Amino acid sequence: MAKKYKYVTREYKRENTIIDFGDLKIGDGSFVVMAGPCSVESYDQLMESAAIVKKYGGSFLRGGAFKPRTSTYDFQGLKEKGLEYLREAGDKYNLKVITEVMEAESIKLVSQYADVLQIGARNMQNFHLLREVGKVDKPVLLKRGLAATIDEWLNAAEYIVAEGNHKVILCERGIRTFENYTRNTLDLSAVPIIKQISHLPIIVDPSHGTGRWELVKSMGYAALIAGADGIMVEVHPNPQIALSDGEQSLTEKNYKELMENLEILLPAREKLYSGDTGVK
Amino acid sequence: MAKKYKYVTREYKRENTIIDFGDLKIGDGSFVVMAGPCSVESYDQLMESAAIVKKYGGSFLRGGAFKPRTSTYDFQGLKEKGLEYLREAGDKYNLKVITEVMEAESIKLVSQYADVLQIGARNMQNFHLLREVGKVDKPVLLKRGLAATIDEWLNAAEYIVAEGNHKVILCERGIRTFENYTRNTLDLSAVPIIKQISHLPIIVDPSHGTGRWELVKSMGYAALIAGADGIMVEVHPNPQIALSDGEQSLTEKNYKELMENLEILLPAREKLYSGDTGVK
Amino acid sequence: MAKKYKYVTREYKRENTIIDFGDLKIGDGSFVVMAGPCSVESYDQLMESAAIVKKYGGSFLRGGAFKPRTSTYDFQGLKEKGLEYLREAGDKYNLKVITEVMEAESIKLVSQYADVLQIGARNMQNFHLLREVGKVDKPVLLKRGLAATIDEWLNAAEYIVAEGNHKVILCERGIRTFENYTRNTLDLSAVPIIKQISHLPIIVDPSHGTGRWELVKSMGYAALIAGADGIMVEVHPNPQIALSDGEQSLTEKNYKELMENLEILLPAREKLYSGDTGVK
Amino acid sequence: MAKKYKYVTREYKRENTIIDFGDLKIGDGSFVVMAGPCSVESYDQLMESAAIVKKYGGSFLRGGAFKPRTSTYDFQGLKEKGLEYLREAGDKYNLKVITEVMEAESIKLVSQYADVLQIGARNMQNFHLLREVGKVDKPVLLKRGLAATIDEWLNAAEYIVAEGNHKVILCERGIRTFENYTRNTLDLSAVPIIKQISHLPIIVDPSHGTGRWELVKSMGYAALIAGADGIMVEVHPNPQIALSDGEQSLTEKNYKELMENLEILLPAREKLYSGDTGVK
Repeated sequence: MAKKYKYVTREYKRENTIIDFGDLKIGDGSFVVMAGPCSVESYDQLMESAAIVKKYGGSFLRGGAFKPRTSTYDFQGLKEKGLEYLREAGDKYNLKVITEVMEAESIKLVSQYADVLQIGARNMQNFHLLREVGKVDKPVLLKRGLAATIDEWLNAAEYIVAEGNHKVILCERGIRTFENYTRNTLDLSAVPIIKQISHLPIIVDPSHGTGRWELVKSMGYAALIAGADGIMVEVHPNPQIALSDGEQSLTEKNYKELMENLEILLPAREKLYSGDTGVK
Repeated sequence: MAKKYKYVTREYKRENTIIDFGDLKIGDGSFVVMAGPCSVESYDQLMESAAIVKKYGGSFLRGGAFKPRTSTYDFQGLKEKGLEYLREAGDKYNLKVITEVMEAESIKLVSQYADVLQIGARNMQNFHLLREVGKVDKPVLLKRGLAATIDEWLNAAEYIVAEGNHKVILCERGIRTFENYTRNTLDLSAVPIIKQISHLPIIVDPSHGTGRWELVKSMGYAALIAGADGIMVEVHPNPQIALSDGEQSLTEKNYKELMENLEILLPAREKLYSGDTGVK
Repeated sequence: MAKKYKYVTREYKRENTIIDFGDLKIGDGSFVVMAGPCSVESYDQLMESAAIVKKYGGSFLRGGAFKPRTSTYDFQGLKEKGLEYLREAGDKYNLKVITEVMEAESIKLVSQYADVLQIGARNMQNFHLLREVGKVDKPVLLKRGLAATIDEWLNAAEYIVAEGNHKVILCERGIRTFENYTRNTLDLSAVPIIKQISHLPIIVDPSHGTGRWELVKSMGYAALIAGADGIMVEVHPNPQIALSDGEQSLTEKNYKELMENLEILLPAREKLYSGDTGVK
Repeated sequence: MAKKYKYVTREYKRENTIIDFGDLKIGDGSFVVMAGPCSVESYDQLMESAAIVKKYGGSFLRGGAFKPRTSTYDFQGLKEKGLEYLREAGDKYNLKVITEVMEAESIKLVSQYADVLQIGARNMQNFHLLREVGKVDKPVLLKRGLAATIDEWLNAAEYIVAEGNHKVILCERGIRTFENYTRNTLDLSAVPIIKQISHLPIIVDPSHGTGRWELVKSMGYAALIAGADGIMVEVHPNPQIALSDGEQSLTEKNYKELMENLEILLPAREKLYSGDTGVK
């Protein structure tokens, strides 16, 4: 099938798109870490998580206030209360806030609290939502769909950019395959592919990409060396009691080790790719 | 992972759910045929299609007024004008109208024209949309997602039913696999599986399930014999000039042959499964 | 990638290849049933199975003497003793014998006992084995590989035919996908595809294709109506104690029901496709 | 399904298995590079390739003498002549030779020329071949099957080890998925998974894993950082005229850059994982 996307290609724009947050950037050769719990579960849980994220050098606080869940009977998030906690934690610890927006009706609300709007994997081809986030002045993190090809993913990004919002960050988070040892199969080759055909920044989510905390560190290192602009990982003060995704969440100890090792890898990476940077 | 759905199971409700449209029913052992063009392209194209659908015994007119397209640059449908044409054609030829609703904001509008609301494969886990169609008094056809397991599909149906709308029709339309000879891999085993664990009716879409018109007939026959409550097929007066899905659309001649053969198979099927019926 | 196969195509040979066993044929429009246990486990188990297979109209006895098993610690088959039992049962009940040959070294031995040599899914691209069975005068049943495309499957068949053995029967037995409710995803669209591009007969194995006995009947009916030349099913006098594949084996009662219903479907099928037939 | 493997697990043997070639080792924390053309095409092509492999620090020469090809009409390799060239090149440039053995009958022959016997992806569950290479005193490189789960792969390795040959090297080479931008989807998470549950060394083949030379370098770096014991890459003096796999082969220039960058990454990797080593 023919490619259709245009604005998101290197042919259209040679130089990397850089998303500018003032004190930090995505896509400029630096490596950002977005971390936090899967769901905002309580004020204390989130504040504790944010403290950990900041302590070892993360720059974005992630956390779901509205949660897309396979079952309608699962915990659906704290909703606006969750957004308030995220903003308060972000302000207190000087972390940018990224959280998911699940429907067009909530874009305005979520935008009041978040620095980056996340489009989840299940909504990658929710074209109405894509068009609507394309109309706001807020960076958008677009997760790859569970069964989306690279081409479909870039076409989804084009939906956003074509509406006028050029601040799109792609996020590889694993695809669905026959392998069941991992929750998904993390497709790290997406990183050099995107770098080759698009100017948009790309980050990697090894937590969803593997579904197992013990694989998150190695895959985080590999993502950095493959040329990603950052990673998104789940961190929880106490994964055993997490309301969702406990088995893929890092403890403080593991997160600390991850961050220290990313720091070690950065100088090596700078020699491989052009970059000016540091883990942020 | 644990199943969560409840209302959609045979344990909860032993007897088949029957969707009652007055003069015809889905799920009562009859076999319904939903047919029409992929997209409503023009008044004439739709009227001509509807005439064909009716002539050989179809009972539902399908056609997209709002089209979910991989690329934002592809034809997106005639929108409300398309809905008007669908209603007029449905009334003229005494066909029920089924068409896709892509976002919660459009449910009210689409409901004014359609007899059945279709949720597309890409929206199978658009949970907001599922909840909202769960609140209206209109049958919903829920297509299986491209990479959705049977369990996820039933959980999606549960989202609708849990809101109060029990009139859900499932639609198997092929899943994404490595095979590229066909557009998708039609999973006909979904029919007996659904019949076993759920009381909801299930129909099959061999047009999207294969992506090739020359396979649609055989797969339609097989769907009937596997126990499906109906099929949905794409019919176009002139597939070569269709704005979308031309290669998987039946001509009048092929549709006629399909309908005649389904009629031949019905008595045989009645001996296999309990059923009272005829192709409608 | 370019197709390479030639001898197996309709372009090369217009009319269907018919495998002639004297009193019965495959590919002539009839519908053959190959049935029996997954593994030959004992003399009594096999004789009892063969009696059941014959009683309700099957014409081929299947059973593994050499078993390809994922683990080296699983039951590997009775080997030559199993072949002897198969031949004796085949002779006693006038059933053709089909059994798997796993390596070139065993072709001669297996050929002494079997009427059809089966190449298993895991060996579909064991090119040495393909070439060697291509040199013997014995029909070969070539199962589709777990992750083989239609093109690769036909190329594998071409390996056999190019060596001189034209008696190849294809067998669709399910492909590996993300769905885990079933053991594999049975790709019934392979039947009309093969009929379209090849003159070779094709049968369907709904036992491996689904991995669940309660789905075998429906998928068997669907295979017949889709145009297959036969089915292969697992039947066991006592599935609960089977050494392998118990959960996908039919009991005598279920096999009886399957055979009776196939008989019902045959006249309907004859009206759809050209055929002269009867369940054999 | 239950795991069955035993000898290949960490529970059975805590410390890493080290394959000892005298002057170099696999699995001891070092990082080996196996490189060379897909197929041995001619004396000159192989000698030239070997010179390049050696010049920049590779330690194994790869090259197919017997080639498993999808089509029987494709180039099948130079066979024994190819083995002779490989041995001569290996001796001349002090490179270990690794080449594929496709059938049990050829093990003896290939063993006379090769230092490592390769089992290809299509033969991962050729159980006869596995058992037979399990009886020789020669390291075996076992490629992961196109649709093999981690569990099936380790069960295949167990077949070899259970026969007495403990010198097994695993090789991740990409799995088959719906994505068609790449030839396969390289599953780098297999590296930390294998390291966690098995003591066997694991290397990565980014050439087959991606099918595109421009992705090979990044994925090679990522493999090293993910903890692999080495990589296998295709290098050809003139990829445009290669008889097979030209589009995934590195030129001398690209191979040089790959090797220099791996050297840069090694000190960083040593800080992450225990290791003593250098690119060999």
